Amino acid sequence: MKSIVLFGTGNVAFHLFRAFSNSEKFKVIQVYNHSSESLSTFKNKIPTTTKFSEVFPADIYLLAVKDDAIGEIASNIKNPEALILHTSGAVPLTVFQNFEHAGVFYPLQTFSKNKPVDFKNIPICIEAKNKPDLELLEQLAGSISNKVFHISSAQRKSLHVAAVFVSNFVNYLYTEGETICKKNEIPFEILHPLIHETALKIESISPKEAQTGPAMRNDLEVINSHLPLLNSEQQKIYQILTSSIQNLHGKEL
Amino acid sequence: MKSIVLFGTGNVAFHLFRAFSNSEKFKVIQVYNHSSESLSTFKNKIPTTTKFSEVFPADIYLLAVKDDAIGEIASNIKNPEALILHTSGAVPLTVFQNFEHAGVFYPLQTFSKNKPVDFKNIPICIEAKNKPDLELLEQLAGSISNKVFHISSAQRKSLHVAAVFVSNFVNYLYTEGETICKKNEIPFEILHPLIHETALKIESISPKEAQTGPAMRNDLEVINSHLPLLNSEQQKIYQILTSSIQNLHGKEL
Repeated sequence: MKSIVLFGTGNVAFHLFRAFSNSEKFKVIQVYNHSSESLSTFKNKIPTTTKFSEVFPADIYLLAVKDDAIGEIASNIKNPEALILHTSGAVPLTVFQNFEHAGVFYPLQTFSKNKPVDFKNIPICIEAKNKPDLELLEQLAGSISNKVFHISSAQRKSLHVAAVFVSNFVNYLYTEGETICKKNEIPFEILHPLIHETALKIESISPKEAQTGPAMRNDLEVINSHLPLLNSEQQKIYQILTSSIQNLHGKEL
Repeated sequence: MKSIVLFGTGNVAFHLFRAFSNSEKFKVIQVYNHSSESLSTFKNKIPTTTKFSEVFPADIYLLAVKDDAIGEIASNIKNPEALILHTSGAVPLTVFQNFEHAGVFYPLQTFSKNKPVDFKNIPICIEAKNKPDLELLEQLAGSISNKVFHISSAQRKSLHVAAVFVSNFVNYLYTEGETICKKNEIPFEILHPLIHETALKIESISPKEAQTGPAMRNDLEVINSHLPLLNSEQQKIYQILTSSIQNLHGKEL
């Protein structure tokens, strides 16, 4: 049984803590956070601390904290034998340049505290400085997920950008969809099945093949009838995405 | 049992034909298309025709054809007692101005021929000129779907724009995500669970609440590190959507 000290109390830390509580090979023995208040949900389950001097010795230090806190926390960890990991999509492995045993454990999913997730299906992107550490990381990731990928820092950076497109930006388009519905007294739920099917479809055919709609069909009449229904920000988004779809699919506006 | 002549052989017509084949109250008795070739998949199942003069008398004429073909087909239907319907999100009911019995039957979903769909969960937006016809439309829609909504032509036009945002444009962002992955030799499947969860999340919390990511967190360091990884078209999309998220969530770039 390998021991883990978990740093952070945000959405990622919260769900990782729950996932590891079912593992037989790895055990979270302590949670650290700089604010005592944020630790309240952990206090009746496990030892917690707000002081670096009280951090337990452990096999693994897992930093599920904001990107800009990773460096500072790392500089306060004084255990050269332990494996230090962060969970960020954007921070390169070189943030741990002073550590011999270092790696990345990046779960690629969007987490909300009040929505349970099944970690078995969440891809975990791993990377390590040394081969033996990579093997330990494989076991760690494999103990909670069936989908473990070896991804370099450079690839992870691009993957993070891709995730911004397919999740953060997509969610913003959902928000615009809801705004348009509300303005016209249409229940947003009418769009749920379409949203769901659009997401599922690209698991069986590529998104390029799955493209439909007026931009794809070069249906200028429909496009021109849509624009007056939108506010100026929505119009800008509509125009740029319509023109990108036209460019990709070889038609000119 | 009410009889239907179905016009069109595209994705919508194909899936409607399958859905009505299980209905006890409504029966498709003929399929019309101007091209004989497109009718081939229907020929061994049901009478077909390419000539308006051979169209059967029926209770309902259901036009699942391209938007710009609706008017022309309607002008060739000579049965004033029948209910004439189209399935378009963008064409107003007034396209049927010469008909006493007219309506709209708009299934709000993205259809591909090679992907089966469960019509029970597909919202059908209905509208009719006269109240008795609306009741017949309710029965027609209710015979294949559990989700029937009364939506006016004006609402439908806005709903169609909203659908472009949450489906066509979203699918385009998936395409960009795949492009970024391919360029960096990352399997696109890594993003499938994230895409799925992002779509599911907004069924339990509103998309505005569900927003995450560097734009939402106003994380300029990450935003600035992403831009050089993108081509000029991707950069434009990244910047406009990032700035829209910032505007909505009250932070300035």
